[in-house]
Amino acid sequence: MRKLLTSILLVFMAVSLWAEGPEKMTYVEVSDLRIVGKVFPDTPNPYERMDFTKFDGWTAKDINLLEMSAGIIVSFKTNSPTIWVMPEFKEISQSMASGFSARGFDLYIKKNDMWLWAGSCSYRLDKEKENGRARLLVENMDNSMKECIMYLPLYSKMTSVKIGVSDGSTIETGDIPFRHRICLHGSSFMHGSSTGRAGQTVPGYLTRMTGMQFCSLGVSGDCRMQPQFANALKKADVDAFVFDAFSNGNAASVEKNLFNFIETIQSEKPGVPLIFMTTIWRERRNFNQKVDKAEREKIEMADKLMKQAVKKYKDVYYVTTSNATSELHDTTLDGTHPADWGYYLWAESVRKPITKILAKYGIK
Amino acid sequence: MRKLLTSILLVFMAVSLWAEGPEKMTYVEVSDLRIVGKVFPDTPNPYERMDFTKFDGWTAKDINLLEMSAGIIVSFKTNSPTIWVMPEFKEISQSMASGFSARGFDLYIKKNDMWLWAGSCSYRLDKEKENGRARLLVENMDNSMKECIMYLPLYSKMTSVKIGVSDGSTIETGDIPFRHRICLHGSSFMHGSSTGRAGQTVPGYLTRMTGMQFCSLGVSGDCRMQPQFANALKKADVDAFVFDAFSNGNAASVEKNLFNFIETIQSEKPGVPLIFMTTIWRERRNFNQKVDKAEREKIEMADKLMKQAVKKYKDVYYVTTSNATSELHDTTLDGTHPADWGYYLWAESVRKPITKILAKYGIK
Repeated sequence: MRKLLTSILLVFMAVSLWAEGPEKMTYVEVSDLRIVGKVFPDTPNPYERMDFTKFDGWTAKDINLLEMSAGIIVSFKTNSPTIWVMPEFKEISQSMASGFSARGFDLYIKKNDMWLWAGSCSYRLDKEKENGRARLLVENMDNSMKECIMYLPLYSKMTSVKIGVSDGSTIETGDIPFRHRICLHGSSFMHGSSTGRAGQTVPGYLTRMTGMQFCSLGVSGDCRMQPQFANALKKADVDAFVFDAFSNGNAASVEKNLFNFIETIQSEKPGVPLIFMTTIWRERRNFNQKVDKAEREKIEMADKLMKQAVKKYKDVYYVTTSNATSELHDTTLDGTHPADWGYYLWAESVRKPITKILAKYGIK
Repeated sequence: MRKLLTSILLVFMAVSLWAEGPEKMTYVEVSDLRIVGKVFPDTPNPYERMDFTKFDGWTAKDINLLEMSAGIIVSFKTNSPTIWVMPEFKEISQSMASGFSARGFDLYIKKNDMWLWAGSCSYRLDKEKENGRARLLVENMDNSMKECIMYLPLYSKMTSVKIGVSDGSTIETGDIPFRHRICLHGSSFMHGSSTGRAGQTVPGYLTRMTGMQFCSLGVSGDCRMQPQFANALKKADVDAFVFDAFSNGNAASVEKNLFNFIETIQSEKPGVPLIFMTTIWRERRNFNQKVDKAEREKIEMADKLMKQAVKKYKDVYYVTTSNATSELHDTTLDGTHPADWGYYLWAESVRKPITKILAKYGIK
């Protein structure tokens, strides 16, 4: 009954517009549908990842990154043969990697119990021309009712996102498509730098693989276990934490922040598992001796302190990744960031160890 | 002795310039080193892939694509701790995929008999600002002599490309780093659309995997076995041909062109193997019924005619790919083109069947 009401409400709220496509479409604001994937669900701008009025201590860099819509997913159902998207950007990213992930949208549809890729699009850099421009995600589908999830851009900032469906078809709020709420806080690796599409992040893969909701709080270059993050995270309504905490910073910042970070979060989240992942092999180390040395020192420090931490603190774990690289060492884009293949390898390598730990806490 | 002379000549020709980096560098034009990877090695502009004065019948689309430096590799040796690149673009591509592949450079260095990735860079779209701008590929290396290969941009057009090494170090012409010459003619799939880096194409992977030189003649959207391509290819100085010939066009163009294409090439290349690959699963088919139908019809036509062709013609083969997709069907970027992971899966799936056929002809 609630669903029917929502559906009727949406039809009432929907705005009909002529898009660039050949047919008349009905557009619905994404925030009127179901949004998932956020560590902090209630934010003044629904397409940002932090309520800056609730938590403080943020630097300009933190704010810039947390305003980006990385990891935000809209869940909806439709029987429309055609699905479009129509955004308004506050900022469009100039990434050297893929436009599909930095400033694009990524659609999956459930088929035989699997989230099967259905469509993607990318926007150009010209905000004035691109704002309000509809782009096609998929067309020529059958008219069965489908469960859909769409990922928002990883490195752009949004003021509005609308989904367009063919006139006369139905669009309604989707269910929460994933069980539990697990915070995945990390560096550019979790943010999704060098991904091909917005859904191809480690949290994206883990979520679709396990059916559990890994909410992304990836902040490129900015995950050094700083106090402002610990202070916000201890208030997060989540069942578990997974951290990629040793990819940014250096040996000194790891040493300075790690134990404080754990203690601050545990002060308000006793009994909630904190799972730290090792960082990965950066292909820039292959020949660059200076990078190799700095990476080695940082990893040695993380390994040393985590060995102590898992003994010192209850509910703290250290999980080893596969290094997110292939046999050929050919999964990097820029020497630091893996591309999709590497991120998939990362997610697949931690999937079992993480789900095994979560299961001990009844999270399965 | 010849190598020593070349080396002395290069030092004489090298131009010393202040690059954007912290040190003084010596720059050498890439065409004065060893260029490989070209089906037609001698072209008026060394960074284009066709001699338009020798072969005719080209359309504006053909010319536009063949002027791009896709698949061109420079082979050199250096003991420099730092390697830079400094290009002059005739045209910089506006790809929505990765800048590292469309308008970037990609460096591998031999280590333990493997081509290990060493560095990459991407250029912005502003030709005036970017022309003559040096970008770093790798730094802080030891000073042993190294065998290097660098891939040129896949979708841009070059008038000049220079390699920069630290002043006082040596750079010299590399050997031909790969055995034999195999022409790999194909669509955007072989051109490398949606790759992350310029070395992550199917010909790139096959070459580094096998040690045999798969020269790329990928032409995005333009590989329909047209007569002008057959007329040029029959003159190519190569040991074998591999074709991705059923990815562009439709059932009608396959039917119209296939047998003519084979007969034209065989008229001047009797006894040279012609290996056709199946096209791959396009993820756009997952939900789009129209694309699904068109793809099915084209593939059925290719399968039917190739079944006849392998009986009708000597030295003609048909090889099945893995569809360039993962279990998750999540290796696409835009629904048509795989990204690196998919291209790797494609290359790996045809590696054994192709090398088995080539071995019958003494190509191993």
